[in-house]
Amino acid sequence: MSGRLTVVGLGPGDARWLTPEAEAALAHADALFGYAPYVDRVPARPGLTRYSSDNREEMTRARAALELAAGGRNVALVSGGDPGVFAMAAALCEAIERGPEAWRALDVAFVPGITAMLAVAARVGAPLGHDFCALSLSDNLKSWDVIERRLDAAAGAGFVLALYNPVSRARPWQLGKAFERLRRHLPAATPVVFGRAVGRTDERVTLATLAEADAVEADMATLIIVGSAATRLIARPGLPPLVYTPRAASETPV
Amino acid sequence: MSGRLTVVGLGPGDARWLTPEAEAALAHADALFGYAPYVDRVPARPGLTRYSSDNREEMTRARAALELAAGGRNVALVSGGDPGVFAMAAALCEAIERGPEAWRALDVAFVPGITAMLAVAARVGAPLGHDFCALSLSDNLKSWDVIERRLDAAAGAGFVLALYNPVSRARPWQLGKAFERLRRHLPAATPVVFGRAVGRTDERVTLATLAEADAVEADMATLIIVGSAATRLIARPGLPPLVYTPRAASETPV
Repeated sequence: MSGRLTVVGLGPGDARWLTPEAEAALAHADALFGYAPYVDRVPARPGLTRYSSDNREEMTRARAALELAAGGRNVALVSGGDPGVFAMAAALCEAIERGPEAWRALDVAFVPGITAMLAVAARVGAPLGHDFCALSLSDNLKSWDVIERRLDAAAGAGFVLALYNPVSRARPWQLGKAFERLRRHLPAATPVVFGRAVGRTDERVTLATLAEADAVEADMATLIIVGSAATRLIARPGLPPLVYTPRAASETPV
Repeated sequence: MSGRLTVVGLGPGDARWLTPEAEAALAHADALFGYAPYVDRVPARPGLTRYSSDNREEMTRARAALELAAGGRNVALVSGGDPGVFAMAAALCEAIERGPEAWRALDVAFVPGITAMLAVAARVGAPLGHDFCALSLSDNLKSWDVIERRLDAAAGAGFVLALYNPVSRARPWQLGKAFERLRRHLPAATPVVFGRAVGRTDERVTLATLAEADAVEADMATLIIVGSAATRLIARPGLPPLVYTPRAASETPV
């Protein structure tokens, strides 16, 4: 007897971003795995066992979820945002690849969600309206050298950048270094958006220029968008400016 | 008297990907603008006037929506997927920037949606599990030269690529050229995902290697994901393989 495992994206904090597909997957699950703050977003109900774990325990969590599914349970493994973007979907695939043969026969499904960069972009206008890259600044799983080469390549070629995992207690200097690096490629006035806890009650979205962008603005819950040379502001009377990247590229990118 | 304008992302074709926030925005609108197939996805009801337009008429559509909002109407401007990703949000910002002063005072909001690359990724596993870029292959608004430089930069630096707008009747050769270009940077076995009409009844998702990837597989409704050198398959008995990009980068990217 074999169960199933569904990796479910909850979207950013606001329940209005939880899709009907995600809601249905959660309603049918009898076991729930995830990082504690995400598990806490799913209401408790009879018949649903909840397994919360720490942030850095992705592989242990994925294996525990697979074991229960292989035993016949209907398991939901939740991520904030989209599970396929710097989240549990890749960790689950790694666990399946390295795990027992039986796990490869399991019924596994993935439910997409609104990822943070889309929610932050929607708060300010259309900064991702042209070509863009999503890059994790965490050097836990890749070297800082690789990250710098990617910052160079993306900014140098005219991509807007969405920076995930900009900072943590163990990684205090990476974002400041990234801003320094990007200043080599981009004008001082390039807009930078700090989107903190978007969709939660403690949401805070602020704008800066790349010249003035200060890494202390960001914490673990912050997603940062750094514009390309084409990204600009539209000033509005009595309203925050719109930030947007025009659909048309100039013929000579940075 | 001033109305409001909300740019609403409907997600890909499946109604189970329409968020509650998008549903609420549509329920409150009294005028609806969009490309005809997207407008058709919103049920008609008394009190809602529907304005459908052609695919290539983004600016005309945005201006018409702004005019009605400035006249006091509650307008929804819809996009498939996410409106901030190669869709109406940037077109609207352009129209506001170039339009009359009154449009800058309007109450404008953006409602994010599941963008195609997230839905396609969810169908196959976690191909976007590591750093990635989203790139439109349309050379209507930028030169082919810029596109090739971006393909080089992204693939050369180890980003996975999500290719939007790969082909149209007026742009038959671009995708083939892009595959050719990417073969300079990536191994022959690099996985390529063709996700056509994901979430619709005529959905078709196919896999190829970069060496064998053929542009005829794609049409206007296709989103293509080209892996990095690290992207790989997990074979599964009696099931399609999982496609994923490990979270950890090797120290020496391509």
